[in-house]
Amino acid sequence: MSVAWLEQVRWSEAGLVPVIAQDAHSGRVLMLAWMNREALLETARSGQAVYWSRSRGRLWRKGESSGHRQQVVDIRLDCDGDAILLQVEQRGGIACHTGRESCFYRGLRDEAWQTLDAVIKSPDEIYSS
Amino acid sequence: MSVAWLEQVRWSEAGLVPVIAQDAHSGRVLMLAWMNREALLETARSGQAVYWSRSRGRLWRKGESSGHRQQVVDIRLDCDGDAILLQVEQRGGIACHTGRESCFYRGLRDEAWQTLDAVIKSPDEIYSS
Repeated sequence: MSVAWLEQVRWSEAGLVPVIAQDAHSGRVLMLAWMNREALLETARSGQAVYWSRSRGRLWRKGESSGHRQQVVDIRLDCDGDAILLQVEQRGGIACHTGRESCFYRGLRDEAWQTLDAVIKSPDEIYSS
Repeated sequence: MSVAWLEQVRWSEAGLVPVIAQDAHSGRVLMLAWMNREALLETARSGQAVYWSRSRGRLWRKGESSGHRQQVVDIRLDCDGDAILLQVEQRGGIACHTGRESCFYRGLRDEAWQTLDAVIKSPDEIYSS
C-alpha cells in the first residue's frame, strides 16, 4: 500500500491514528477509535467506517455484529496530520455498544462521572441476532 | 492527586488521554489534543482547557500565546474511559494555529488531502503580540 495520501498521515509508532466519528446530521460526536493504514484505506474505498480494534488486535468493520454501520460522508485530516475526523451517517442512530447514540454519555458533575444519556436499545437486543 | 474521578480515566502507559474539543455552539470539531492528569484536573477546576503538549513536553494552556482560549462548558468521558470530549466556547472563533476555526481543515478529495477551509486570521497577526 504505497498510497501517497495515506503516507501523509502521521502514524504513531504502533502504526495507528486516532479517529473521531461525528454524526453528519446532528453534529454529535459519536466515538473515538483508531485506524491503521489498512483500516483507513478500506474506509476510504468502501465508504464504510473500518477501525483497528486495539483490544482484539484486528480490523473492526463497525457494525459487523451490531448492524450499526457508519456510512462515511467526509474524511478530514488535522493540521498536524495525526488525527482524523469522519463525518458519518450512523445506522440505527446508535454508535455505542451500550445502546446509546454516543459513547460520550458520561459527564463530569460534582467531581463524578454521571450517566447523562439514555439507552436507546438494550445491548441484549442489539447483539442477539 | 488522588481524585477519584481522575483515576476512573483509563490513562495510557504514557499517562495521557486523547481529548476532542468541540465548539459548544456550532458543533464543529475543533481539534484533538492530549491531557495528562494534571492538565485534566486544572481544566476541570479552572474551566479553561489545558492540554499536555507532547512535542514540547509541558502543560499547554490553550491560548497562552494566541489568546485563543477555550472556556469549558462540559467534560465527557467515553464508554471505555479512554477518551474525553470537551464542549468549549472558543475565544476568537479560531482553534487552529494556522488561523482557521478548526484543525480539521483538510478533506480527502480524489485521493489527496485538499485544504477546504479559509484562514480567518493570519498566524503572523495571531502571534505578533
